[in-house]
Amino acid sequence: MVQKRAAFEELQQRTDFIDRHIGPGEADRQAMLATVGFESMDAFIKKVVPDAIHSEEPLNLEGARTEAEVLDELHKIASKNKVFKSYIGMGYYNTHTPTVILRNLLENPAWYTAYTPYQPEISQGRLEALLNFQTMVSDLTGLEIANASLLDEATAAAEAMTFCQRSAKSKSRVFFVSQDCFPQTIDVVRTRAEPIGVEVVVGDHRKDLDALDCFGVLLQYPALNGEINDYAETVAKAHAKNALVVVSADLLALTLLTPPGEFGADVAIGSAQRFGVPLGYGGPHAAYFATRDEYKRVMPGRLVGVSIDHHGDKAYRLAMQTREQHIRREKATSNICTAQVLLANIASMYAVYHGPVGLKTIAQRVHRLAATLAEGFRKLDVEVLTPSFFDTLTVRTGARTAEIHAAARNHGINLREIDANTAGISLDETTTAADVEVLWTIFAGGKTVPSFAGCEAEAGERIPAALLRTSDYLTHPVFNSHHSETQMLRYLRALSDKDLALDRTMIPLGSCTMKLNATTEMIPVTWKEFGAIHPFAPLDQAQGYQQLIAELEQMLVACTGYDAVSLQPNAGSQGEYAGLLAIRAYHMSRGEGHRNICLIPSSAHGTNPATANMVGMQVVVVACDERGNVDVSDLKAKAEKHAADLAAIMITYPSTHGVFEAAVREICEIVHAHGGQVYIDGANMNAMVGLCAPGKFGGDVSHLNLHKTFCIPHGGGGPGVGPVAVKSHLAPFLPGHRVMEKQAAPVCAAPWGSASILPISWTYIKLMGRQGLKDASQMAILNANYIAKRLAPHYPILYAGESGIVAHECIVDLRPLKDATGVTVDDVAKRLMDYGFHAPTMSFPVPGTLMIEPTESESKDELDRFCDAMIAIREEIREVESGKVTAEESVLRHAPHTAMDIAGEWDRKYSREQAVFPVASLRGNKYWPPVGRVDNVYGDRNLVCACPPMSDYE
Amino acid sequence: MVQKRAAFEELQQRTDFIDRHIGPGEADRQAMLATVGFESMDAFIKKVVPDAIHSEEPLNLEGARTEAEVLDELHKIASKNKVFKSYIGMGYYNTHTPTVILRNLLENPAWYTAYTPYQPEISQGRLEALLNFQTMVSDLTGLEIANASLLDEATAAAEAMTFCQRSAKSKSRVFFVSQDCFPQTIDVVRTRAEPIGVEVVVGDHRKDLDALDCFGVLLQYPALNGEINDYAETVAKAHAKNALVVVSADLLALTLLTPPGEFGADVAIGSAQRFGVPLGYGGPHAAYFATRDEYKRVMPGRLVGVSIDHHGDKAYRLAMQTREQHIRREKATSNICTAQVLLANIASMYAVYHGPVGLKTIAQRVHRLAATLAEGFRKLDVEVLTPSFFDTLTVRTGARTAEIHAAARNHGINLREIDANTAGISLDETTTAADVEVLWTIFAGGKTVPSFAGCEAEAGERIPAALLRTSDYLTHPVFNSHHSETQMLRYLRALSDKDLALDRTMIPLGSCTMKLNATTEMIPVTWKEFGAIHPFAPLDQAQGYQQLIAELEQMLVACTGYDAVSLQPNAGSQGEYAGLLAIRAYHMSRGEGHRNICLIPSSAHGTNPATANMVGMQVVVVACDERGNVDVSDLKAKAEKHAADLAAIMITYPSTHGVFEAAVREICEIVHAHGGQVYIDGANMNAMVGLCAPGKFGGDVSHLNLHKTFCIPHGGGGPGVGPVAVKSHLAPFLPGHRVMEKQAAPVCAAPWGSASILPISWTYIKLMGRQGLKDASQMAILNANYIAKRLAPHYPILYAGESGIVAHECIVDLRPLKDATGVTVDDVAKRLMDYGFHAPTMSFPVPGTLMIEPTESESKDELDRFCDAMIAIREEIREVESGKVTAEESVLRHAPHTAMDIAGEWDRKYSREQAVFPVASLRGNKYWPPVGRVDNVYGDRNLVCACPPMSDYE
Repeated sequence: MVQKRAAFEELQQRTDFIDRHIGPGEADRQAMLATVGFESMDAFIKKVVPDAIHSEEPLNLEGARTEAEVLDELHKIASKNKVFKSYIGMGYYNTHTPTVILRNLLENPAWYTAYTPYQPEISQGRLEALLNFQTMVSDLTGLEIANASLLDEATAAAEAMTFCQRSAKSKSRVFFVSQDCFPQTIDVVRTRAEPIGVEVVVGDHRKDLDALDCFGVLLQYPALNGEINDYAETVAKAHAKNALVVVSADLLALTLLTPPGEFGADVAIGSAQRFGVPLGYGGPHAAYFATRDEYKRVMPGRLVGVSIDHHGDKAYRLAMQTREQHIRREKATSNICTAQVLLANIASMYAVYHGPVGLKTIAQRVHRLAATLAEGFRKLDVEVLTPSFFDTLTVRTGARTAEIHAAARNHGINLREIDANTAGISLDETTTAADVEVLWTIFAGGKTVPSFAGCEAEAGERIPAALLRTSDYLTHPVFNSHHSETQMLRYLRALSDKDLALDRTMIPLGSCTMKLNATTEMIPVTWKEFGAIHPFAPLDQAQGYQQLIAELEQMLVACTGYDAVSLQPNAGSQGEYAGLLAIRAYHMSRGEGHRNICLIPSSAHGTNPATANMVGMQVVVVACDERGNVDVSDLKAKAEKHAADLAAIMITYPSTHGVFEAAVREICEIVHAHGGQVYIDGANMNAMVGLCAPGKFGGDVSHLNLHKTFCIPHGGGGPGVGPVAVKSHLAPFLPGHRVMEKQAAPVCAAPWGSASILPISWTYIKLMGRQGLKDASQMAILNANYIAKRLAPHYPILYAGESGIVAHECIVDLRPLKDATGVTVDDVAKRLMDYGFHAPTMSFPVPGTLMIEPTESESKDELDRFCDAMIAIREEIREVESGKVTAEESVLRHAPHTAMDIAGEWDRKYSREQAVFPVASLRGNKYWPPVGRVDNVYGDRNLVCACPPMSDYE
Repeated sequence: MVQKRAAFEELQQRTDFIDRHIGPGEADRQAMLATVGFESMDAFIKKVVPDAIHSEEPLNLEGARTEAEVLDELHKIASKNKVFKSYIGMGYYNTHTPTVILRNLLENPAWYTAYTPYQPEISQGRLEALLNFQTMVSDLTGLEIANASLLDEATAAAEAMTFCQRSAKSKSRVFFVSQDCFPQTIDVVRTRAEPIGVEVVVGDHRKDLDALDCFGVLLQYPALNGEINDYAETVAKAHAKNALVVVSADLLALTLLTPPGEFGADVAIGSAQRFGVPLGYGGPHAAYFATRDEYKRVMPGRLVGVSIDHHGDKAYRLAMQTREQHIRREKATSNICTAQVLLANIASMYAVYHGPVGLKTIAQRVHRLAATLAEGFRKLDVEVLTPSFFDTLTVRTGARTAEIHAAARNHGINLREIDANTAGISLDETTTAADVEVLWTIFAGGKTVPSFAGCEAEAGERIPAALLRTSDYLTHPVFNSHHSETQMLRYLRALSDKDLALDRTMIPLGSCTMKLNATTEMIPVTWKEFGAIHPFAPLDQAQGYQQLIAELEQMLVACTGYDAVSLQPNAGSQGEYAGLLAIRAYHMSRGEGHRNICLIPSSAHGTNPATANMVGMQVVVVACDERGNVDVSDLKAKAEKHAADLAAIMITYPSTHGVFEAAVREICEIVHAHGGQVYIDGANMNAMVGLCAPGKFGGDVSHLNLHKTFCIPHGGGGPGVGPVAVKSHLAPFLPGHRVMEKQAAPVCAAPWGSASILPISWTYIKLMGRQGLKDASQMAILNANYIAKRLAPHYPILYAGESGIVAHECIVDLRPLKDATGVTVDDVAKRLMDYGFHAPTMSFPVPGTLMIEPTESESKDELDRFCDAMIAIREEIREVESGKVTAEESVLRHAPHTAMDIAGEWDRKYSREQAVFPVASLRGNKYWPPVGRVDNVYGDRNLVCACPPMSDYE
């Protein structure tokens, strides 16, 4: 048999990963194109993407590579990071991630591919984990209520500032910040304050507060230099001024110290990083926010609450979701909608695994070592400047400063370089007696190093007696049960089994892009060379990171058509904020600081107006036509009217309705013509990569959501990465950081944001290469159109473009059916759970609809399984339509159905089988919702946001 | 508040891992001791372990260490391994483990903590994976039936030899082995042949076979030197002699070559290592065994078959389990009961993920690179001695041999060092064009290296046209569906969700010790420094492994009281075999080779007599009393009677009935007094570590099962590690290997057996330290006694010791209940699945009983959950006893219940709720068996051992 000789290029399988990432194989693609009515992908895409913006030019990226090649290259880059032992502290500490949590949570797709728990019935596991987080924070801080995490300690401080402004009785515009706060926190607070007219006064809380009128006070506990201040008097002073007090506190220290809630603080914020989350060059980590019960309805961020399901059984859900800005829109005061769920869950599981006794033991060890270190320094005549401390000493280094830092480097150690005379040393969970001896050696300058045992025996307690904690914490059984690894493993598995994530099903969320987070992309995240680097480590130790960051910035430049990118923003909301700040600063730099009008189409995502508010802009809404497109004549009118003050327009492309608007170039030109800048929300960049580029068709700035387009996993609601990309004229106004060359105002605590997950996007782009990224965009669009085509005979599809084609997502309109039958969008969403699917996005951007984004990663089989479910549900609705059953009696209204439902008595108008096995494919692979439909109203009326007592479970 | 100052030693948490490993906390321990009737652990253990053997001396091991410390130390050891690129071949090749399989199978506890699928209803996932493996092997080899893996290629060859002896018409005692076979295969075949009187003739199949009378022929395809021989004529010759032909074949090559089944071979064997399983210094890897349909009932190893459940739906199970030696006992011809399930599943998933097109592309690339390499050698005047080849060239190196190998080393490369004039080069999946150029450079000796592109273009096809494969393979949909990573991920998850493993529940298997396999123990297994080392790499590159092995041997010496240990045996059965070989060799060395009587108590595990048969010993059964103890007077009588020929006694301690026999010292002395050696089966070593030591109380040799005592995970039925430990007089007779200093007869292909998983046991021992290991033994015994005490009022407990105490497992006798009610041990075992438990060991060692071993890792909560289930089941049996229902009508007989059961029509005498939620705790966490009770008889009568066609699924 003569075999055709294959070309060697083909044999090399360089493009293999593209086919691993993209769901449908070649034959399926052809079949789907035929269904949609096209002969070729090219013809199809030409129809979808307007000629005016469609670019045939290949992306300026390398070709696709194999997974082995890319991991090899990344490993070489990673090895350029030098893993020094960090004693820098300042909010970032070494920690041991318990390996059972590392493998079975952080590295487990059941956890990291989950979506934000908006659909509580399929999210009970991660909601329980987050409730544990809230309980942990509430217990440790001594405050009644805590949220389910914020982005980082510095943005939490900024949120606390605006919270104080909203909540304090004082009408002052001044926010006092103690000079003992972490400098990166102060910087971010300043960034946030200025555009909204808040004056930040930084000073000594002991004296500078007395004469000051202010609405809020921010304190650090323990302080930057390590001291443990007694803030009781300061709190009393602040309260006397009608100001509120925010304490940024270290969670590990709080196991030993009087908690802020007990000395009168109104808010506690801080980072949960040192509870098991690697340093990761600055992030992602979970921050926390806790406050008094009276403020629970105005606190920022997501809050998990306890409610009941339709059986009356306990069920968790996100409380008070109506506060989220996609519903409040123009009234929103914060644009933060990303939490750090995955990281909060690691921290909460760290507390569950160690329990109160374990955490206290760790804290005691850290403190004992610090006290021993100080005792040794005493013997060595090294002056410790902090009489009290938990884990951090400030030491006078005087004339020997340079010599000491050099000696430290020789030992592979970073101390905190405070100034020419002083150094800081923060110990942590990983510090050992041997480490303390090395520190002595570094400082000894040739003197004999004292004996560890002797110093340990003589070391006194350095926490002031008056501030020793006396109250209990983490007394709930969940923190006192799962202490063997077997128990912990099963707890993690049991929780994740309650949830639906990408490892079991398509998650057809419009606008949220639940595509594959490939294993090869995830593997580097837990490499030590990325995990163990302190964000303020000297740059020469982070050359691997610097290279990775520079390369990723360039790759994003290539994908977007912009000129410069900043990776600092650690969520899309932050990127958007940084983008508008850049526009604002640009106008100010040209003496046009008065430009403050921001045009926003009525179809925009709710974060847009919220962000405009945050930079002090005034929102003017531009109308949209019935297809969701910007009404160009209205735009023209508004732009002309506000020409003198026009700052910007914020548009989303393709639109939030999933349409490639043909007029986008014209829109940009109109705004530019009137002196405005064009902000193009990059949320839908995944439909454009390789096809058109916002930086080329008129955008001045965009933010991207790397999880949407570049495979950062959702993690159950965070981490996020929200780079901001700009044309060159805006580049000078991108965020900076005190440890960067560019010292412009930062938006985040860490200079490069969520650095440790950037390898995910870098790897994805390297694996796909220029062709793969384009293929992905095309396939995302084809998949959406395939679904639209299959569902169109059964449901109206909204906002198809002129040719009946949608972009990368489609909107199914359920309003006519609701009018006819009473079956709601909720009923359909919950019924899909019985078919094993996560619900699509509900009522966004249009109330009463479902928005579906299949992404390129879903195979035709899975799309068909979904369409079959939707069509079967349509038939179920027909039973109501035809009068056979009422909506109340229908299988839809009772959805989702639990196993307990069908095991019990049955008085329904449909069979048990119809309830739980409506299609045959479920017989081989059935997901069981652990609770019935959750009652949101009950939960919001009876707000419980910490673990309920065990008696409730019985 | 004055706080008590904690001792620094306590704060260091050095013993933390002990409490992570051991389930019950301190308070629970006390409560359990009280239940069992003791005040302290010491008093309890004194009662359990006979004074005569109880040692209070601490183990000669270090103290416990933290997980971070131990991982650090191991990392330092690992870094002493030098990862060279291997071109050595000889059955071991570099491969890319697809990362989605690495993370979600190899590193996933749902897969690695599963037990052997004896209980099919809770094992459908891994049974399907194994059926895929069988289908893959059958397709690639062109033979009708394949088993679910064997231990390694060499032992598979030895099994094939005995298979031929059993099955061939020829009555010859000669087995012909081609000199082109891998040398380690030939060595193991020789080891196995000699004791059973088979003569192995090694020669040239082209000429030495003609005049030879033999029962079997073993050939290598492609051959050791790389050549692809046409064996058709050889097969014809062998068949003419009534001999059977075994072909050891490379699975990757078979994607391009005419398969053995098509040129007449009767058996194909080989390794599936290169399908995604790391080299790991030799193992573990899955071997395969395939044969013609006519031999299916006599083939060795485990076979997965298709049957039906009680609904008549398709269900998988182990076929023909009656062949396993614990049932056949004295008639067994092989002692192999471990397969390499985890590794077989990796290989099968590798094929599922790549599919036939992907595998063929990989094979074509490897071949093209090999052909290109040869073409370049031609241009460089390097003589290639193999005219035909797939991936392996033999090259004349002549006078430059040493120089070439030195150059290779300088490039971090190992070639195969054949002899002073020739070298071998085996390419593989990971080889690139750049690698080929480096190889040319090494051989060029200063000449200009040819251009890759030029050589590639000129390189011819080097597979003989007559041997090019024309038949299809892997046409089943399972190999053509899961090709995107999303699909693969979901397939892996869906399969593992069907199964119960340790990540969800206690697996209370008597004698099989399903204890925690801690994450920290598992993490090093997939480090490159352990994974990427070829078993025949020069020792100076494997110093990390050598240190680890030496240390682990010493730690096992400390635990057992023996003087020397060999880690080569890659399963308990192999260790047992090596142990008896050592006894045999010892007797021969003393001129007492006639000693061939092996005493075995009637209570022994079935592998014991099988192993005795394998070394040519004659089994004499010794009686046991009604408590399962050896009848000492019968032993005395038999020992005296056979004194002249007494070779050994094989006993298990504590006995397979779970009893610490008080007479064990006396038993050993009797045997020694009559010239015999004492073999103590170490299967139950986990009850002895730190309490008593077989090497101290009379044993001459023991094998251990590292998965039972030292935390190697079961992996769904393998890997295993079965070290053999001996007193010093037997040390010279431990297994050797041609690449070791000790060149004694090997029992396995790889010199250090399943080397890559040895870090698991090393880590476990280091973490636990001398005290932790003792604590574990004590707690294992207490846990068993706690269960026995709780169940005793409800079920008779067999074989409790004189004081009513059991050892580390207990036997629940169901025979009286069966006699009274007709409810069988099967009914109870299957009913436990409805309660979310894996069944205990059924009918071993006593028919009609359940043996339960809780292990030290299960918490009191989990033990109580299990006891509550058993007690609830007892109440269910009472319904039958009281005449309310018949056994046939009972909830027990219909167990396990599936979700489909309760969703459908219902005509049972009990409620749906009683069927699936018999206890309240299930409501929060319910496991659903995917199939009803499986019909074993149907499956054995209608043997189907490959993936059924898709039409069967509809």
